[in-house]
Amino acid sequence: MIGDRIPLKTFEVPTGTSVFDWTVPKEWNIRDAYVKGPDGKRVVDFQKCNLHVLNYSTPIRRTMPLGELKPHLYTIPQNPDLIPYRTSYYTENWGFCLSHNQMLALKDGDYEVCIDSTLENGNLTYGESYFPGRSADEVLISCHACHPSLANDNLSGLTVATLLAQILSGRDLRYSYRFLFIPGTIGAITWLARNREAAARLRHGLVLTGIGDQGRFHYKKSRQGNAEIDRAAAHVLAHYGESSEILEFSPYGYDERQYCSPGFNLAVGCLMRSVWGTFPEYHTSADNLEFIQPLQLAESLRICAAILDVLENNRRYVNVRPYCEPQLGRRNLYRSTGGEAIGAEINARLWVLNLSDGEHSLLDIAERSGLPFASINDAADLLFQNQLLSTVEEESKLGTVRGELSPENMFRRS
Amino acid sequence: MIGDRIPLKTFEVPTGTSVFDWTVPKEWNIRDAYVKGPDGKRVVDFQKCNLHVLNYSTPIRRTMPLGELKPHLYTIPQNPDLIPYRTSYYTENWGFCLSHNQMLALKDGDYEVCIDSTLENGNLTYGESYFPGRSADEVLISCHACHPSLANDNLSGLTVATLLAQILSGRDLRYSYRFLFIPGTIGAITWLARNREAAARLRHGLVLTGIGDQGRFHYKKSRQGNAEIDRAAAHVLAHYGESSEILEFSPYGYDERQYCSPGFNLAVGCLMRSVWGTFPEYHTSADNLEFIQPLQLAESLRICAAILDVLENNRRYVNVRPYCEPQLGRRNLYRSTGGEAIGAEINARLWVLNLSDGEHSLLDIAERSGLPFASINDAADLLFQNQLLSTVEEESKLGTVRGELSPENMFRRS
Amino acid sequence: MIGDRIPLKTFEVPTGTSVFDWTVPKEWNIRDAYVKGPDGKRVVDFQKCNLHVLNYSTPIRRTMPLGELKPHLYTIPQNPDLIPYRTSYYTENWGFCLSHNQMLALKDGDYEVCIDSTLENGNLTYGESYFPGRSADEVLISCHACHPSLANDNLSGLTVATLLAQILSGRDLRYSYRFLFIPGTIGAITWLARNREAAARLRHGLVLTGIGDQGRFHYKKSRQGNAEIDRAAAHVLAHYGESSEILEFSPYGYDERQYCSPGFNLAVGCLMRSVWGTFPEYHTSADNLEFIQPLQLAESLRICAAILDVLENNRRYVNVRPYCEPQLGRRNLYRSTGGEAIGAEINARLWVLNLSDGEHSLLDIAERSGLPFASINDAADLLFQNQLLSTVEEESKLGTVRGELSPENMFRRS
Repeated sequence: MIGDRIPLKTFEVPTGTSVFDWTVPKEWNIRDAYVKGPDGKRVVDFQKCNLHVLNYSTPIRRTMPLGELKPHLYTIPQNPDLIPYRTSYYTENWGFCLSHNQMLALKDGDYEVCIDSTLENGNLTYGESYFPGRSADEVLISCHACHPSLANDNLSGLTVATLLAQILSGRDLRYSYRFLFIPGTIGAITWLARNREAAARLRHGLVLTGIGDQGRFHYKKSRQGNAEIDRAAAHVLAHYGESSEILEFSPYGYDERQYCSPGFNLAVGCLMRSVWGTFPEYHTSADNLEFIQPLQLAESLRICAAILDVLENNRRYVNVRPYCEPQLGRRNLYRSTGGEAIGAEINARLWVLNLSDGEHSLLDIAERSGLPFASINDAADLLFQNQLLSTVEEESKLGTVRGELSPENMFRRS
Repeated sequence: MIGDRIPLKTFEVPTGTSVFDWTVPKEWNIRDAYVKGPDGKRVVDFQKCNLHVLNYSTPIRRTMPLGELKPHLYTIPQNPDLIPYRTSYYTENWGFCLSHNQMLALKDGDYEVCIDSTLENGNLTYGESYFPGRSADEVLISCHACHPSLANDNLSGLTVATLLAQILSGRDLRYSYRFLFIPGTIGAITWLARNREAAARLRHGLVLTGIGDQGRFHYKKSRQGNAEIDRAAAHVLAHYGESSEILEFSPYGYDERQYCSPGFNLAVGCLMRSVWGTFPEYHTSADNLEFIQPLQLAESLRICAAILDVLENNRRYVNVRPYCEPQLGRRNLYRSTGGEAIGAEINARLWVLNLSDGEHSLLDIAERSGLPFASINDAADLLFQNQLLSTVEEESKLGTVRGELSPENMFRRS
Repeated sequence: MIGDRIPLKTFEVPTGTSVFDWTVPKEWNIRDAYVKGPDGKRVVDFQKCNLHVLNYSTPIRRTMPLGELKPHLYTIPQNPDLIPYRTSYYTENWGFCLSHNQMLALKDGDYEVCIDSTLENGNLTYGESYFPGRSADEVLISCHACHPSLANDNLSGLTVATLLAQILSGRDLRYSYRFLFIPGTIGAITWLARNREAAARLRHGLVLTGIGDQGRFHYKKSRQGNAEIDRAAAHVLAHYGESSEILEFSPYGYDERQYCSPGFNLAVGCLMRSVWGTFPEYHTSADNLEFIQPLQLAESLRICAAILDVLENNRRYVNVRPYCEPQLGRRNLYRSTGGEAIGAEINARLWVLNLSDGEHSLLDIAERSGLPFASINDAADLLFQNQLLSTVEEESKLGTVRGELSPENMFRRS
């Protein structure tokens, strides 16, 4: 489905491939699974909900008394109506996940247990979408694709990343962009092990996950802590109309764990709404399509686009009239009647002129002035057109991601 | 009037002189201006209030219907009794400023409009007062002189600067002091363009304005943000008995805009009471002699003097007995009966001895200890006299601005 | 008594010895002192409380009227039942300290005054206890021993230091430890003057005093302000269950005044409970054995031991699998069922792996993670045993102060 929307290249990495300290595991496939009660009816049924099987369960087909079955049943006693999502990737095991109430209702007797799975040599599969820009330096957008039936924890990231890739498609971009759709942990490790050169070109990155629910935004900083992506995300969220929170880096979480491991130490943060583990729906059957909302996904996309807008346009300029202010009035860049206050647009121009000394980037100026990046960038465009600024970088200033992506004209609240 | 009190040198810069990106404009002079109503009476009269004319208005003498006059009338609808102060320096225009109620009372009919002004080649005029010190390094005190009929926004700065210059006059000074009385914006630009060498000698500077009203003090930092003048002003205000506020630099405001342009980036801050644009009297006829008060002007002068006191005395010393404390008791610099707490004066001595390692200045010590600069400076004087300190700088330690200027003996609340 | 518990070497420094800016004073000894009233009874009696004599009083034996005696009487009017502790070390004087009420009760008449003291050439005495470690770099534990009849201000430090020395005795230590039991001020000055080489080897130090009362802990930072000892103490107190306070360095206080004088600038802080001068018992007869408590002394000892534990174990490691996370699961260092939250121990392992890049010390990691040092250290031990870490320093990792000293097994609340 992603490949229908954006150019997607899939890769297959065989079982047994060494990837740093890990080995690509066997491939797991499952067709059916159930537990039949003493009366022959299915009391747990994979066809109804694929969370019912402990992920990576080895195949089994046996009849056993309830007492023998119970150690293989996973529930959430404190949320007795929800089915948990559980896995056993690296310890061979089998099991079923069900609601605690469902389990309590099981009566003594013999149960027929069936997991029609295979765990055999095969491949780890991941998808990649690459958009070349003017520079070989890359921006990474990474999301995990290992359990897409969880809507917020997994599907929301895939969705927003796909739409973001559609927006970038066909644009003239400053950076090259790489989108990864990979299994969590082992997928990121596998990609990094096989793409050392691409990893060395990564300048900025975002892990996208949990961005469809109604919680406020959380941005978790990269290990570097003050990378440009960290500052861009914090700036965009600070100017977003609603409350948000910036989290310090920690080595637990999503695939930023791998990108920020000390050998790589990449500038990759993680954008979320509600933080993993802090909401009751997390890793349960309640993380479903009702838990995420189109409006929230759209706003998440807007935030992502605004962050990329900062990265694309964050340049340094030099004021070519650095001694005193240039006379903006005769260039029609100032108000003509003195004595009244100046407007926000003129204020942004003064800030850009004052701090464009070749050292301050537009993001520096936005941060110090307290003005939104878009205002500072607009002012810089205008001053550049009026020959009051010159660029430090060689590349010419081009309209890129911005424009159609502005909150005003991209997505509107209904 | 300033020249009656302090040595003042005036400069005339001809119209058409290039000053960086600007050109010295024509000289504007005005003798009379009025609007006569259909009944022949003056309804707007420059003789009653010189704010009534849009500053820099081109001459006009014509009769016109009210409808034609109205686009040339400036009022403040939200403060309908006040006459605004408006200018049109760089767009040729004419106009009248009047209270909104005055305008509403104008009836239809023909009005005789007269502005008896000249806008011709001439000169930009500014005044300078210079006090040489032991060092060629300069301290700048700058205030704008372009619309002195506004009492707080303009006249208060001239007043305090003049009194400050009187205090410095005849003293043995560490720094050389330069006072500028200049038209706002174009005056500062003109001075900087003609005095690049003097500008390069500026070490510290203050723009003085809006310091006669009853608002609390505001100090706006220089673009550098942590210059000695910024720290000195913040320190003095922190130890002033009443609340005050330190503002970050911004490129809008008074002539610090020019001094802090990126080509100069001088350590010039701005001392105010109420901040421009934040009080209803700002740029109106209500900013008059009743709005400013002698006591407020006197306290502003005290604060200025205290800031200069820090600059004049902020030296580094070296403790010549750096290993353990020197025995203060036998020099009568300690209390003689042990077991009781020490007094504030002894505490200041211990701080000066402990931090006088050649790296910490007295202001550093005052900041770290939380003690007022004057206490630290007194302690340093005493320890120096007792041969416990040596100076790092070559120049000898001399009583300068301090003394008569201390709050205790300079200006007293009545 | 200290020498009965730990190996103690005492030093005698003769009167007249030059120690930096000071001279070792005469030795004071006292056998008896009293004031007899007109009725021949002792109204002030050194035998009842040794605070009754102004310390360092010159000998006297005379009868005088009350009026002549009074200038030699020291009281605390605001605490009229307490006897003050007063000294006159460097000004020859004599006097008595008594409660204010006691003084008020004195009737007119002749008083027999006797101070049977000697103030003659002799020695300054101090004690030293040294425990060699694997490194010649030293940790200093210093406490003053000049007026041990004050329980909190003086005796508590001696007590905790002695017990701490007992704990270190016989251990394999990373650092060498030096305990000083010295007269305040002149003792520290004398030691520093005679031990310049040892002083140069001091890496960390603590002045211990006032740690027996029921007040919360205060740690006063060294002059350096961010030395390892400062960070270790702040960390330990932050993870201590009860509230505590970190104080900035100031040049008044205990012997850190000397260790932190600018010529030495040693990393020596001061650990206290209630701060000198802030509690009414300070420097009075109420600072007695009832004012300090065994439990408080024991907890102070625990805090000291925990601080030394940080110093002893604060190493840098290098993650030998720095590219992505190593697979902890197959080493039984991770939970086996995925989908649930990880425990605190696994979290500590992830932090150590992520930040062990040769630059971050374990204390850095503890600070950044917010986890207690002991957890981080345990994780590092385990990861080192599993060959996932290598040490940066040459010396091998050895269990040292830790272990028996953990709060769980060292001192228990009754």
